[in-house]
Amino acid sequence: MLTYSFLNIGSDRLYEHLYKCIRKDVIHGILSPGTKLPSKRSFAKHLDISVITVENAYDKLIAEGYIYSIAKKGYYVADAPESGWWNYQPLTKDKVETEEAEQEPEGFNQYLPAPAQSHKDTYFADFLSNHTRTDNFPFSIWARLMREVLAEEKESLLLPPPSGGILQLRSAIAQHLRQFRGMHVRPEQIIIGAGTEYLYGLLIQLLGHHKVIGLENPGYKKIGQIYQSSGVRCQYISMDEHGLNLKQLMDSDVNVIHLSPSHHFPTGIVTPISRRYELLGWAAGEEGRYIIEDDYDSEFRLTGKPIPALQSIDVMERVIYMNTFTKSLASTIRISYMILPKSLLHSFYQKLGFYACTVSNFEQYTLARFIGEGYFEKHINRMRSYYREQRDRLVEQIRNSSLNTHTTICEEHAGLHFLLNTDTNYSDEEIVRRAQAAGIRLTCLSQYFQDDRIHSSEHILVINYSGIAPERIPEAVRRLAEIFR
Amino acid sequence: MLTYSFLNIGSDRLYEHLYKCIRKDVIHGILSPGTKLPSKRSFAKHLDISVITVENAYDKLIAEGYIYSIAKKGYYVADAPESGWWNYQPLTKDKVETEEAEQEPEGFNQYLPAPAQSHKDTYFADFLSNHTRTDNFPFSIWARLMREVLAEEKESLLLPPPSGGILQLRSAIAQHLRQFRGMHVRPEQIIIGAGTEYLYGLLIQLLGHHKVIGLENPGYKKIGQIYQSSGVRCQYISMDEHGLNLKQLMDSDVNVIHLSPSHHFPTGIVTPISRRYELLGWAAGEEGRYIIEDDYDSEFRLTGKPIPALQSIDVMERVIYMNTFTKSLASTIRISYMILPKSLLHSFYQKLGFYACTVSNFEQYTLARFIGEGYFEKHINRMRSYYREQRDRLVEQIRNSSLNTHTTICEEHAGLHFLLNTDTNYSDEEIVRRAQAAGIRLTCLSQYFQDDRIHSSEHILVINYSGIAPERIPEAVRRLAEIFR
Repeated sequence: MLTYSFLNIGSDRLYEHLYKCIRKDVIHGILSPGTKLPSKRSFAKHLDISVITVENAYDKLIAEGYIYSIAKKGYYVADAPESGWWNYQPLTKDKVETEEAEQEPEGFNQYLPAPAQSHKDTYFADFLSNHTRTDNFPFSIWARLMREVLAEEKESLLLPPPSGGILQLRSAIAQHLRQFRGMHVRPEQIIIGAGTEYLYGLLIQLLGHHKVIGLENPGYKKIGQIYQSSGVRCQYISMDEHGLNLKQLMDSDVNVIHLSPSHHFPTGIVTPISRRYELLGWAAGEEGRYIIEDDYDSEFRLTGKPIPALQSIDVMERVIYMNTFTKSLASTIRISYMILPKSLLHSFYQKLGFYACTVSNFEQYTLARFIGEGYFEKHINRMRSYYREQRDRLVEQIRNSSLNTHTTICEEHAGLHFLLNTDTNYSDEEIVRRAQAAGIRLTCLSQYFQDDRIHSSEHILVINYSGIAPERIPEAVRRLAEIFR
Repeated sequence: MLTYSFLNIGSDRLYEHLYKCIRKDVIHGILSPGTKLPSKRSFAKHLDISVITVENAYDKLIAEGYIYSIAKKGYYVADAPESGWWNYQPLTKDKVETEEAEQEPEGFNQYLPAPAQSHKDTYFADFLSNHTRTDNFPFSIWARLMREVLAEEKESLLLPPPSGGILQLRSAIAQHLRQFRGMHVRPEQIIIGAGTEYLYGLLIQLLGHHKVIGLENPGYKKIGQIYQSSGVRCQYISMDEHGLNLKQLMDSDVNVIHLSPSHHFPTGIVTPISRRYELLGWAAGEEGRYIIEDDYDSEFRLTGKPIPALQSIDVMERVIYMNTFTKSLASTIRISYMILPKSLLHSFYQKLGFYACTVSNFEQYTLARFIGEGYFEKHINRMRSYYREQRDRLVEQIRNSSLNTHTTICEEHAGLHFLLNTDTNYSDEEIVRRAQAAGIRLTCLSQYFQDDRIHSSEHILVINYSGIAPERIPEAVRRLAEIFR
């Protein structure tokens, strides 16, 4: 039953206090329209107050339209008191933006995650987010291609695409992978989906909920969240200096291992070819084992020759390759893909072919043109040199600062982040807190571990540099140095 | 091990036959690049032929580049024989369309579901598909709004939206539901996703994989496929003339019932208000019970006052409401939404708030404008009168045909399909086959049942009229009548 405290009610009379408590809950949506309130008698007993007090409170609430009574049934929360938050104003274009902010009571807003830009406003520099900066997205080209698609593809835009996506896009991706990654893939093997998160879920359905998924430790916590949320069991496997610890993998119950051999986050490890063959050997060792190769930022390898994808040296058809345009283009372009080995294709179309493709035709056609007409390649090249400059600028600033004497930079060769090993007495928690106080958002390597191996990984900052504005780097490094004084 | 039959090899010599078999499998992708072939000795033994025969076949395949050998290791399927299907040509805009069709070998194409338009070409009239016709989509308005969004929303298009979708769209939907469906819903309760199929999966993650999902029998088979594919147990509950059989529901293990009370498919039953309260009573009867109210075509109720949605009379917060724009706008617009009761909101944001929204910002902004500026309402109204005319035309043609004497039409008041009860000696299978032969695609009510209750539901055709071209109706009915002669 509803419970309110009658401590610290100030000069209010009891019924006034109860009235205010209920009204507040109604306004804030905690008591929602139609909710039945306790009967006067039982409520009074429950709160240890008199029936008259409850009655007076209820009467005031009825008079003001917050609740209503039905004879012989009881009291209910009303649907639309005048000041209620559910009275939406007619929606006009200009009002949309402000309306929300003004009319929301605080009670409900707790459910709404803060919009992404709020970090931008709060922090001077954000080394935690790995979102790409919107300025770098070739918006005008994208917009032109969209307009072309609208003008030229009218008919096809309204035709339901195959479950795996439109062939034009799948062919364009196959083509791209062949030229830039040396991968030979059929368009039919490529399955388009609205984000890798969605595709992980699809994969679980394909491989079966009984599989045990192996995850890298340390690693992105979100990946584990997704698999667990899909109802499968996960086990964490440690990393050594060459990537996933094979001995641990062998000793585990894992059937399907999810890894990013091209560039592990957050350690930055690039798995060498020998370890890759060992991993393939593990997969081949038993029926039903698979490797999910998450190649999410392979486009941004800054130095050295790329190591072949596991997918391209897998002759046993045990590798499922995943990549996304969210990372390489813009975080709001929700287009990712997976490449199924041929052995899984038939089962995919049979088991899951009934699913409609989750990406709109419109964006699929636009992206197909963007890749097919060479803009994707240009963009990647441009971004690669942008990130290289960004990294160099940051590294140079760090070396020229007081940080130089007590930090080392490592794993800076493959894209978008590096590690900053610091010699300090502060705990990782203190580092993050001190950074926060200085307007710097960052996190430490230790945060990405599942378990308690804090000691070996302490005092290592993870520096994502993809999202930070170039002009803010000097000041950001100055503040960073300040933290360790 | 690979096995080929040596029966009926005609005038070929044994080695030639073996060579052709392997070459065919390589070309068709059945033997994929890198596959290890059996050793000569074991293969010979397995096929009961001489080692020399296998050697000759392998030699010819090596000479032609289909396979290669590695000393002391064995024979492998080659990566890129000249004529191989994996040699993609550089992709140019004009080539994309034809390239696929010309270069695909038949072996692989079996995995690719036929594109949707093929039915259009194969059938004179399609009464099975409930896809809306593309001509009815207000493409030019949609395109104009898209161009506006591109021009005016540049910044916001690249900002990651909240997990549930952009607020503008959720507010517009809340607003629409209030005005046209009398539902009072907060934008925060609305969760946008790329299709209801995706949202079902999300719901399972929210409610838990241990739930038993109840499904209507008869009903859309796809819904059961999706839930089962997500790893939850399903039970089927029969329908009586007022909707879901409550006694059966009570006696089942079901915790979560998925139903469409506004207009059940395929029976067309509209669940009356009394049964709706009984259903809500069932849900309130035990902790953790929920109703998924699938309101997919409620916009197209053609006559009579709409019955309130379960969602809007649910004071116990046990109803999850679902609807989609795929049905009301175009099947390629993959935007659907669910409305969570407030009691589930917190748990949604806590458990699943890490998921990125699966619909691109771009389409969300366009749809928000489309609804907010009144185009959605206009479109719905236009479509409703279009479908009414469509139904009337079809019913009239049926009544004026020879079908009139031995058929009755029922459940024709709520949108997009009706039932045609026929007095015939043909089995349902024969009806479908005869229709097919006459260029008519249709199905019978009995097809939607899970079990063997064929007798009571036999000889009832399900007539979806949303996708058929008006000018084809007279001829389609003539052919339909022909079937029963």
